[in-house]
Order: sequence, then C-alpha cells, then structure tokens
Amino acid sequence: MNKLISLGQRAKEASYDLMNLSTTEKDKALIKMADKLLLHYENILKENKKDLENAIKKGTSKAMLDRLSLDKGRIEDMADGLKQVALLSDPVGEITSMWRRPNGLQIGKQRVPLGVIGIIYEARPNVTCDAAGLCLKTGNAVILRGGSEAINSNKAIVEALSEGIKEAGLPERSVQLVEDTSREVVTEMMKLNNYIDVLIPRGGAGLIQSVVKNATVPVIETGTGNCHVYVDDESDLEMARDIVINAKTSRPSVCNAEEKLLVHEKIANKFLPVIISALKNENVEVRGDERTMKIVDNINEATEEDWGKEYNDYIISVKIVSSIDEAIVHINKYGTGHSEAIVTNNYENSQKFLQRIDAAAVYVNASTRFTDGYEFGFGAEIGISTQKLHARGPMGLNELTTTKYIIYGNGQIR
Amino acid sequence: MNKLISLGQRAKEASYDLMNLSTTEKDKALIKMADKLLLHYENILKENKKDLENAIKKGTSKAMLDRLSLDKGRIEDMADGLKQVALLSDPVGEITSMWRRPNGLQIGKQRVPLGVIGIIYEARPNVTCDAAGLCLKTGNAVILRGGSEAINSNKAIVEALSEGIKEAGLPERSVQLVEDTSREVVTEMMKLNNYIDVLIPRGGAGLIQSVVKNATVPVIETGTGNCHVYVDDESDLEMARDIVINAKTSRPSVCNAEEKLLVHEKIANKFLPVIISALKNENVEVRGDERTMKIVDNINEATEEDWGKEYNDYIISVKIVSSIDEAIVHINKYGTGHSEAIVTNNYENSQKFLQRIDAAAVYVNASTRFTDGYEFGFGAEIGISTQKLHARGPMGLNELTTTKYIIYGNGQIR
Repeated sequence: MNKLISLGQRAKEASYDLMNLSTTEKDKALIKMADKLLLHYENILKENKKDLENAIKKGTSKAMLDRLSLDKGRIEDMADGLKQVALLSDPVGEITSMWRRPNGLQIGKQRVPLGVIGIIYEARPNVTCDAAGLCLKTGNAVILRGGSEAINSNKAIVEALSEGIKEAGLPERSVQLVEDTSREVVTEMMKLNNYIDVLIPRGGAGLIQSVVKNATVPVIETGTGNCHVYVDDESDLEMARDIVINAKTSRPSVCNAEEKLLVHEKIANKFLPVIISALKNENVEVRGDERTMKIVDNINEATEEDWGKEYNDYIISVKIVSSIDEAIVHINKYGTGHSEAIVTNNYENSQKFLQRIDAAAVYVNASTRFTDGYEFGFGAEIGISTQKLHARGPMGLNELTTTKYIIYGNGQIR
Repeated sequence: MNKLISLGQRAKEASYDLMNLSTTEKDKALIKMADKLLLHYENILKENKKDLENAIKKGTSKAMLDRLSLDKGRIEDMADGLKQVALLSDPVGEITSMWRRPNGLQIGKQRVPLGVIGIIYEARPNVTCDAAGLCLKTGNAVILRGGSEAINSNKAIVEALSEGIKEAGLPERSVQLVEDTSREVVTEMMKLNNYIDVLIPRGGAGLIQSVVKNATVPVIETGTGNCHVYVDDESDLEMARDIVINAKTSRPSVCNAEEKLLVHEKIANKFLPVIISALKNENVEVRGDERTMKIVDNINEATEEDWGKEYNDYIISVKIVSSIDEAIVHINKYGTGHSEAIVTNNYENSQKFLQRIDAAAVYVNASTRFTDGYEFGFGAEIGISTQKLHARGPMGLNELTTTKYIIYGNGQIR
C-alpha cells in the first residue's frame, strides 16, 4: 500500500483512541515528551548539524540558517513549551450549550477533537514540537510534513516525542512525520480526504497559496498580513507615533506588523514630518503617495502595487486620506483581513472603524502587533487565521476542536 | 470584463453595505421580498411552466418534475418562509465574549457576516428564495447558481425578490443569480476567491463532491448521510422498533434517514424477525449480513458495498454485532459522520456511544430524523454540514456568520 495512505490510516486509528483520553492522560504524555526532548538533546543537535551542513552547501541565506538552527537553549524552550501546554485547560468535552426541546429531547453541543490534523510547514524545526504538543493536548492525531531542509532535525525530534508518547501509554501514531520530502507527497497529502480532517499550512505566502489552491481537504489559511494603521484627524499624535513605530519596527518580519500608514489630511502637515523622520531613524524605508511626497522630501513613490503588498521588512507606504470613510474603503480593498488599527479620540469614528473594517482583528488605539494567541490570553497559538470559516484571528486550543451534538431522548420519533 | 467577476465585485460591494444594516432594516426587506413574491406569483408560475415543459421534453423523471414544479401554495410557503426568517433573532453584532488583558486591552469576539456566500444547487426553485432570505438576514450578499432545469423559475423569483430589496432601500446586488447555466461558470465560481468567502453546495452527492474537489473557495460540505441505528442488548425493543421504523420510513429520501440497522447478538433472535417483518410491511427492501440471513428468511445479502452506501430509498441493510464496541467501530468506519443512534437502557453504553461515535449528531433513544435546523430549534436551516470545520450538523443563522476580534486600547504597544 501507498506509504502516505497507511500513515493516514494509522493516524485515523490513533485519533479514535485520542478522543477518549482524559486530560490527565494527555498532560502526562506532554510532560514525558518534554523530558525525552531534553534527554535526547545531543542526538537532536547532531541531526540538526547535518541539516545545517547541507543548507550551507546549498548556499542558504543567513536568516534561513538561523531559523533552521537549534542549540541547547532552543531545545529547552521547546520542552518548556510542551510543559506550558500541559498546564492549559483542556477544551475537549466542554458542553458549550444544552437545551431541551418541546418534545423532551435534550440537545447539547460538545467540543470534540477535529480528528487528524495535517500540518505543512517550512524550515523551523520548533514547529514540529509546538504543533505536536497542541494537537495532542486537544486529542488530535497529527501528520507533520516539514521542509526538506529540516528533515534530519524533524526526524530526531519526532523520535524523541514518540518515545515519550509511548511511555505514557498513548498511541505511538498520535504524532507522525512524513519522511518523504518530495513535492509529490505534499500534493498527495492535500487530497487525503479520507484520513485528514483539516490541513494547516504554516510558512510563506507561496506555500500557503499552494495549499489553498490544491487541497481538497479543508484548509485553515494562515498568515498573510497587509496591516494598516489609520491616524484620524482627532487623535493624540504622540500616541499615534508610538503605535506606528511599534507596529512597524518591533518585529517587521511577522504577519501582524504594520505595512501601511494612512493619515487624515487635516493632520498630515503636522504629523507626517514627525512620523516619517522617526521611521527613518529606525531604518525604515518610507514610500508615499503623491500628496505625502509634497509634504515630505526624500521619500520614494508608493505605486499601486505597494498598497496590496506585505513587505515583512523595514518598508512602509504612507497615504493621505480625506476622511475616515476613504480610509475604511482603502483598507477593505487592499487589506488581507488580518489586523487593522485606528488611532482616534473621536467616539463615533472609533465605533465606525470597529464596525466597518472587515478583518480578523480591529484595534482602536493599540498596536496591530497584539494579534497573537499569547497576547490575546489563549496561552498558545497554532497560527493566525485570515479566512472566515471556522477560525478567524489567532488560533488557540479551542480552534483545534470541532463540536458534535449529543442528544438524550426517551423514545422520540418524528 | 468577465461577467462572473463583475457579479462577484458587485456582491462584495453590496456585502460591505449589508454588514452595517440594522436588524430592523433587514427584516423590513424580508417582508417586502415576501410581498413581491406573492404580487408576482403569476409571472413566477408562467416561467416555471416553461421549465416544466423543457423538462418534460427531456424525459425528466416524475420525482424530479415534482421538485421543480411550483404552484400558488408553494409560492405562499416561500413567502411565509421569508416572514418567519424576519421573526428570528439576528445573530450579527453579538459579542460572544469579552475580556480584559493585564495590559488593559479589552478584547471582544463579535459575530459578523461572512461576506459573500455562493450557493450552488440543483432543481428546487424554493432554495433560491430560502437561501436569499437566510443570507440577507445574516447580512451576507449571496450569489445563487441554480440548476439549468429551473433557470426560468429562478430568474422570475430573483426578479421579484430584487424588487422588494430595492424598495426597502437595500443594495439591489445583495441577491444575484448566475444566469449562465454552463458547467464552465460553476467551475469559475468555485475559484472566485477574491469575491466569494464561502461556498455551500446543496444537492446530490455528485454535485457536492465536485464542489469539494474543485473549489479553492472555502466550502461547507453538506448532506451525505449513511445513518445507523444500533439496538443494544439491554434495550426496550418496542422503542427500538418505533425508532427504526420512523428513522427508515418517515422520509427515506432525506439525509437523516436511517440506512443501516445494527443489532446486538443477544437480542437478534428475538428482535430481528419482528423488525424485519415490520420493515417489509412498510415496503422496505431488507438486506442482511450472513448471521441475519440465518435468522430471517427471504432477505437479500448485504455486500461490502452496502455498508458504505446511502440508499435514500426504501432499502435497509442489517448486521448483527457481538458488542457495542463492534458497533462503534463499524459506524466510525462506514458512517458519513451525519447522524447515529443507539437504543439502550444501559447507562454506561449510552455514554460510551455518545463519547466514541464520530458524527455531527449522536442520539440515545431517539430517531436520527431529528437532525434538522427546525427540529433543533434554530428556526431555520441552510443545510446540514458533515464536515468538521466551521459548522457541524444543522446550520442555522449562527453558522452563516463568522467572528472578528474588536479591541479597545488606550495606547498599548508591545
């Protein structure tokens, strides 16, 4: 039999066992998994070194090598992550509502595991451990398909985790790695509807779009963030400056970083010179629309292409708008529905922005950088969904569950 | 520009207006839509006659002609349906939870419309009206693509509805019909990710599978139901008989009808002759596994193919199992995750069945036929989801919404 199919079948079988486990059993396994990571850290580092050597041979960029590379500290972080997940409360089993119908049927809606989750991701080996921990905590079996660059590290990590899972008495197939790193196997995985319930791609826009386009298994789209900060005419300009600088520069490579600044025309003359100079001080390349270029010298022109682009870099494009309505239309047109912020002291405008912006997270007077499972208080994050089905915004443990209706009758027929 | 794309763009624009409407505005439009249906009933019947004549020429089956055909009463039912939707409470705007973070950020999760919903369906013209009403109530724009058999009826219905929408002052493009009935346009619609947020196919298994396989737009899979009733050894056999007969024969063509009967071996000798004779009295063809055929004469053999099949007809397959565990494994293996029932008086077994069966609706001592938006008390139904993402089981108004996070800050940066 095809290897991926048999892997899928085993995951499905494991998932039926996993859904019946108590929280205590799952938490014990998470702790064991953490212990085994630490116990086998030398082997993991040895295997990671192979990946690094191969990557260097291929002329991989420094940033990529950094993502790929592990050290003792990073393995400790992974183990700590598992222990923290063990401390989170388990969403599985919760009855979110229950009611009685006139005919006496008692209908409850109960959180249950999704079943088998497929994760398709790129170079970072820590995703292997994080995803395994979150899926196991929520009673899901997981099939991991990491990038070829990290295959040796991933194998060593899964081997360690599996030892912990086995010792805890859980099905060993709860966490499985696809060891075949060919492109064909990814394509096949995307169509494994009989065995995989949900696919979550994690990585660059190319990977995610390829999964969205080719998968027949339901997908949760994550990631792309062309985030805006709009500074309204009635606003605290000092607060606006802090928020823009934080949203743009605190970590430009992530999806909740600001990419665009919209400024109301009434305050443009006052605010733009200040903020653009501050951005330049932080080594941000500033691009502007025509009106912005008339106010501030020495900036590049923002083209039509810029408005729709996620830079993930020290670049920002600035546009002057005539009204909050223009800002809203612009954001809904060019945004990716991730995180959008207004800085304002006008009550009506704050409500309008919250109501009319079509995005996963809409902020008044705060940085877009808070769109994150930990910052939202979920204690975990498997990714940030930018689609509208199932989950929108940061996904914690709840988002790795589905529901089923449980119905108590006493002989009702229709 | 391509016609479907411009239709999609207009739907998207309409959706931004729709999401800001008050419930009162939407309800007024629903009432107007109902009025216009009644006002134009003669035209709708005239156009429906064209469809019927074409269908007869093509040699369409009687059952299909019945689905296609409208009369005054059916149009009144459609109008009543819209008025009932107007009476339901509006899920849009509800803050399902709100909390404050240590840094003072106040984070709320709010129900909002999905945006643009695409419905791909077959012959029944009433779906046109039902879907339009439910989508409008939840502030979504809808693109309807009905079957070619009903194109004239659908055009007339949408024309009437649009007149009502326009008079109520809502965007006319809130409800649009794809008038091109070619297969190519469906394929194109399935990939219109920029303009359609969610696709809901409604119809036979062929249609639904084609959408699931080909769509890049997120899909909610509806419908297929290979439902089981398992009669446990400790059970009230009279209740079991009533439930089996009801689940199988009250409406065999629908997805929540029973297709399979599993019986514990301890009661097989007593129960099977009774139930099989009762089923035959209701003109049900009974197929049985080897053990069943040893107990009851004159039944056909159930093959491996039977266990996975949804008959939607007066046919049932019967299997004897040695334990509840065997029943659970069988159901999880062959079921479609729709509705599954146990008849038992054993407490532990009732809990085991509820816990271990992986389906949208799991029943103890009640007919599977209750899996329905109205029977669950939702007041409406757009379909029954058999997937695990977003919605599972009967979908009412809530399931036509998504959420967004609204965040109130006072200058927080990270």
